[in-house]
Amino acid sequence: MTFDLAVIGAGPAGYAAAFEAASLGVSVALAERAELGGTCLNRGCIPTKMLLGATQPMEDLAAQARVKTLSGEIAANLDVLQTRKERLVSATRKAMRQRLKDAGVTLLMGEASFTGPNSLRVQSALDRTDVEFSKAIIATGARPALFPGMEADHERVLDSDDFLEIREAPASLIVVGAGFIGLETAQIAHRLGVGRLTLVDAMDRVAPAEDPEISAALMSIFKRRKWSFKLSARVASLKAEGQGVRLELDSGEILEADKALVAVGRKPSTEGLELEAAGLAADARGFLPVDESLRTSESIYAIGDVNGRMQLAHAAEHQASYAARHAAGKETAPYAPGPTPSIIYGDPEVMRVGALAAELLAAGESPEVSKAMLVSNPIAQAHASTQGFVKVVWRDGRVAGVTAVGTGVSRFTVAASMMVQERWRREDAESMMFPHPTLDEALKEALLAERKAG
Amino acid sequence: MTFDLAVIGAGPAGYAAAFEAASLGVSVALAERAELGGTCLNRGCIPTKMLLGATQPMEDLAAQARVKTLSGEIAANLDVLQTRKERLVSATRKAMRQRLKDAGVTLLMGEASFTGPNSLRVQSALDRTDVEFSKAIIATGARPALFPGMEADHERVLDSDDFLEIREAPASLIVVGAGFIGLETAQIAHRLGVGRLTLVDAMDRVAPAEDPEISAALMSIFKRRKWSFKLSARVASLKAEGQGVRLELDSGEILEADKALVAVGRKPSTEGLELEAAGLAADARGFLPVDESLRTSESIYAIGDVNGRMQLAHAAEHQASYAARHAAGKETAPYAPGPTPSIIYGDPEVMRVGALAAELLAAGESPEVSKAMLVSNPIAQAHASTQGFVKVVWRDGRVAGVTAVGTGVSRFTVAASMMVQERWRREDAESMMFPHPTLDEALKEALLAERKAG
Repeated sequence: MTFDLAVIGAGPAGYAAAFEAASLGVSVALAERAELGGTCLNRGCIPTKMLLGATQPMEDLAAQARVKTLSGEIAANLDVLQTRKERLVSATRKAMRQRLKDAGVTLLMGEASFTGPNSLRVQSALDRTDVEFSKAIIATGARPALFPGMEADHERVLDSDDFLEIREAPASLIVVGAGFIGLETAQIAHRLGVGRLTLVDAMDRVAPAEDPEISAALMSIFKRRKWSFKLSARVASLKAEGQGVRLELDSGEILEADKALVAVGRKPSTEGLELEAAGLAADARGFLPVDESLRTSESIYAIGDVNGRMQLAHAAEHQASYAARHAAGKETAPYAPGPTPSIIYGDPEVMRVGALAAELLAAGESPEVSKAMLVSNPIAQAHASTQGFVKVVWRDGRVAGVTAVGTGVSRFTVAASMMVQERWRREDAESMMFPHPTLDEALKEALLAERKAG
Repeated sequence: MTFDLAVIGAGPAGYAAAFEAASLGVSVALAERAELGGTCLNRGCIPTKMLLGATQPMEDLAAQARVKTLSGEIAANLDVLQTRKERLVSATRKAMRQRLKDAGVTLLMGEASFTGPNSLRVQSALDRTDVEFSKAIIATGARPALFPGMEADHERVLDSDDFLEIREAPASLIVVGAGFIGLETAQIAHRLGVGRLTLVDAMDRVAPAEDPEISAALMSIFKRRKWSFKLSARVASLKAEGQGVRLELDSGEILEADKALVAVGRKPSTEGLELEAAGLAADARGFLPVDESLRTSESIYAIGDVNGRMQLAHAAEHQASYAARHAAGKETAPYAPGPTPSIIYGDPEVMRVGALAAELLAAGESPEVSKAMLVSNPIAQAHASTQGFVKVVWRDGRVAGVTAVGTGVSRFTVAASMMVQERWRREDAESMMFPHPTLDEALKEALLAERKAG
């Protein structure tokens, strides 16, 4: 079979690329070895947000109960939650399959491996398809990384995929890794009734990709929930032992719990691709390096998690759209992502778009920052969740970045992305009406607040 | 006493005008007969949002309980809620007073009345101050309108001010007026346990200022909550009778309930101002007409609810900033509000900014509309609140308006305002990364959806 374009992997990147290329009149084959939707739909963003979204009333009630405005009890039905999650995920997969079919994409279920610079083979249990292509897009994504000494047994030592299938909350849980995956899953665990939660990270703060003040605010909020933290702590070993798990730190300290979740990052999935056959090579960390057009060779693109640029579904989709248009000859300019927002979900939320002050400082620039606390916002008061802040990073009098932490702050993300993209000045914030009363007024207040050296 | 500027009324408009003028170096007197903060802080947006915000977990739990993911009970403690609300309001008033003092504004507590085109008198119970001014700003706001035949007795026939002081939920309530005030207070009543709710309106739909499809969506959602509606229904009389209230419609139909709330709009507050002494006159509806610089005479401005332009606190503040700068000689261009967003709070929320399709059609234009339903959004699914939609109004291929209804849609407001202000094209939405998964993706989907004649 011969196609203009072969796409490997039907996650957010590969699906979007195949769909867009087909709509541009290109003949497209899409190879997928497991399920449509990839990590995001099946084992990542969507299941996580289903569990966090459905259990959010528990956190909101807890906040009001602390100030005694509301009282009551909420129990989660984990079986129903899992069923609903699976129903949404499978309905979405079905809709994706139909849309691909309608767009004329040839879907090949099976494991793809290159057989040459312009050919690959898709092998399923039943059959084998040889595909010739003019161009290809590798969108094989990433999967949970596990380090030696802490292999998941998927029963008591879990990876994030296992955790999202949880049917019963353990009495105690150790979470190794306090990045966004660890923090989101810890919140789910907390809401589902895990009594004793311990987070372990080799870094000296949680959410190390964020502004240090964000990390500090998160710590302060989570400590109120009686979570324990072991930071700057390296894991020597983690294994199932007795009825639970036993974790030994480099320091010799021993932690025990019913279960452990390992969320120490993700690694690119390129195994089985036979990269050499196409003349490709991964870098030392396993990522496929790409040029300014997202190509890892003259005719082959690598997009999404596998290229190591940005492990976010919406970044992957954005790259996909570019690669599809570039492969179809509709685009010649270098890839320009524009502002790339990110969110840590739950309660509190964290949002970030554009530059952090530390990044600009490290680049030798002299950023300014301005800030507003949520405590003076009437909507934060109404929700009895007043911890948190909004911070604006300025470069030459223009908005270069926005980050925030607190209940509901993800609502700033799109507007903040637009402000970064359009390099807003103070006057833009002054002249624009923000609705009253909204949490958004905290963003306006931060834009208008006194600026200090970043 | 002589001042450059005299401001009458310390609500959102008057407070902001006095503060900003003082910060521009103008000498300012601010007269207030009751409380700092006006309707919004004391009897409007803030108390309403405190009650709606605090009780939101009840609605969220109800949504999850319908799909059986969560179960439980939540009770509101109305005394604590009222105390918290009063504490926030009084702390805000105190902070306002301090800020005015720090800015050098002379606060005169008492009833202001003009004594000439450049003079007024402020009369309190204890004393009287005569003020000479170069310029004045009237920002006296509005108050609940009551029509003959349905006067509030403040015990059983309530106005919205009375309702916000509620300490005990009546078993049944009639709400006269299904505009935003009626709808927000009905939602509070519902959450606080009012068993039987009946909304009455002379119009043929609820939220008549909104797009008709929004009204229909609201009706559908509220009918699920077993609310009764009497639309296209005029009230002949409403009065306390027996243990409750008795409402007679023009049709002769009789409605009975424990209490009634009259929310049939608001009328401008100009009584006692002695407008004639300054050579001013209100229009037939009682509003102070203004020119393109928000002036009702050569030297006197009228801003906020009293000029009848837009009954919104943030619109009032925006006008205030302009009037302060214009009065201080820092601004000469005509007043340009830019996009003016509005929100109906609660669950669902309604947001709107820019033009409605019907407005453009009425002006002889040929708008297009595009739309996305919330049901396909994973965050709406996670919150088990999937009713609602986003609608974009286009004029000449540019975004002219955005409106939405559904749980949490107020989060679109600031970004949508920016899109209207910058007259976004389809390509702007295509090139911009929206975070995944967020409710915001429904806005993007609406921007990219097929357009039809509006």
